[in-house]
Amino acid sequence: MLDTMIIGAGPAGMAAGIYAARAELSHLVLESGLMSGGQIVNTSEVDNYPGLKGIGGFELAMKFREHCDACGVKFRDGKVVKVEKNEERFLISLEDGETYSAKTVLFATGAKHRTLGVPGEAEFAGSGVSYCATCDGAFFRGKEVAVIGGGDVAIEDAIFLARICKKVYLVHRRDEFRAAKTLVNRLRACENVEFVVKATPARIEGAGKVERLVVNTETGERELPVSGVFVAVGMLPNSELLQGLVSLDASGYVIAGEDCRADVPGVFAAGDLRTKHLRQVVTAAADGATAIYEIEAYLNER
Amino acid sequence: MLDTMIIGAGPAGMAAGIYAARAELSHLVLESGLMSGGQIVNTSEVDNYPGLKGIGGFELAMKFREHCDACGVKFRDGKVVKVEKNEERFLISLEDGETYSAKTVLFATGAKHRTLGVPGEAEFAGSGVSYCATCDGAFFRGKEVAVIGGGDVAIEDAIFLARICKKVYLVHRRDEFRAAKTLVNRLRACENVEFVVKATPARIEGAGKVERLVVNTETGERELPVSGVFVAVGMLPNSELLQGLVSLDASGYVIAGEDCRADVPGVFAAGDLRTKHLRQVVTAAADGATAIYEIEAYLNER
Repeated sequence: MLDTMIIGAGPAGMAAGIYAARAELSHLVLESGLMSGGQIVNTSEVDNYPGLKGIGGFELAMKFREHCDACGVKFRDGKVVKVEKNEERFLISLEDGETYSAKTVLFATGAKHRTLGVPGEAEFAGSGVSYCATCDGAFFRGKEVAVIGGGDVAIEDAIFLARICKKVYLVHRRDEFRAAKTLVNRLRACENVEFVVKATPARIEGAGKVERLVVNTETGERELPVSGVFVAVGMLPNSELLQGLVSLDASGYVIAGEDCRADVPGVFAAGDLRTKHLRQVVTAAADGATAIYEIEAYLNER
Repeated sequence: MLDTMIIGAGPAGMAAGIYAARAELSHLVLESGLMSGGQIVNTSEVDNYPGLKGIGGFELAMKFREHCDACGVKFRDGKVVKVEKNEERFLISLEDGETYSAKTVLFATGAKHRTLGVPGEAEFAGSGVSYCATCDGAFFRGKEVAVIGGGDVAIEDAIFLARICKKVYLVHRRDEFRAAKTLVNRLRACENVEFVVKATPARIEGAGKVERLVVNTETGERELPVSGVFVAVGMLPNSELLQGLVSLDASGYVIAGEDCRADVPGVFAAGDLRTKHLRQVVTAAADGATAIYEIEAYLNER
């Protein structure tokens, strides 16, 4: 029986692996993708993981993996299909038929950004189309960009980008906003922001790089001459396995504070998957460390 | 007037600088030491900052500093003597007579470990004498070590080290423990742990490296043949500047949750300085990122 089963091999899961191995907890990190790293694998450049400036996402994932391997972290490929609590232990069933038991389970399955589903979006993802202004805004200094969305995150992203970029188009399908009124007012006060409302993205175009976003408006198509498109239409936490096991919030995030403890003893959640304000590589990695510390405390409490 | 004044240039302060510069917030990072880095500068090896395996503390500090410089983070040497809130802004007075004003203040002044004050302690600090079992335990695999202290952290450290080390001496000046009873019972169940109670450390000795800890007991001196001494007699947060400004807990930590907001609007605390469970480089760096995100939100709320 393992001390802890770590599900997910992104920054949170790998950081947890490093801390678990160094603490000599028996553990296994389950990875479902083709390689370790989670979302960062598909990120062209990560410039805000402190200490590793301007590193490629793939390269950063490899650095984490090398660190894991040097510490003796144990990995296994496999997709989890079910996690059950049985008395004081957990049964983790894999798609290939194998079952593991563990005293604790650490979910680090991350989240994915909702997409627009328009032509050009997938093609330019990571090279002109971004889902994170905090991560990628600095790459668009002095350029024109569009932000898609009408919630808090979209408006915050647009305010943030207005400081950095030459011009920001805020594209929203309605002319009212879910975002806080103070945020919208603050955005309206930015001189280099143009609101493009009652407009839906149709396609993203360019030769080799993003050159324009075409939107459908009430009066027909309009071309916005941008080199960056920031999609801020929400995130989808990968929390299917946790439904019915622990409490999730309305958006599907695991309700867990900084200590990464879910509301069922022995279940922990680290990284983008849990309720938190800022989802970044460094905050995910910190969660991985903290979760293992809390798991040790939990095991000591038994 | 600055958007934010960042006081302290350890991992939390430098990570905050990176996020502030990338967000184009006007800022200044004040450093009081001879160089950036905080506590890690004096750490021989840091093996648990994910992505940078087995790096020297000095080298890690330089990596953070290089990252800051690449992002255009602004630094200034100087010791802060006073921080006052005046309406909606803060006045920060430096020892050299200069005064700055800022809309927000981010304290990242860290904490220091209480020391024993015995001969050999300073000499072997970072090379046999450690103040963090989570950080350094893995370097003592299969060896004999001593842990000094009687609180939760000391007992947790001893349990942790008992998994990794050949033998652990738990040295405590009394024969009762402040630590939780469950923790003490768990430690008593470890076969490779010896309790050395009513004992106080006298000196740490060795030729070039730690070879023994000499303790005073009721029956005279006793030599413990250890190669590592883990000092767990508490921490002292560097929170003098915050006394009277915001609420501190009984140990002097700034009362602030994961969002790094202290209980006075506009005052933020990141890293070892604030109330949290796990104090590590990666959790400090995550705080720096989160604090800047929250500062942006705070400025947007005005």
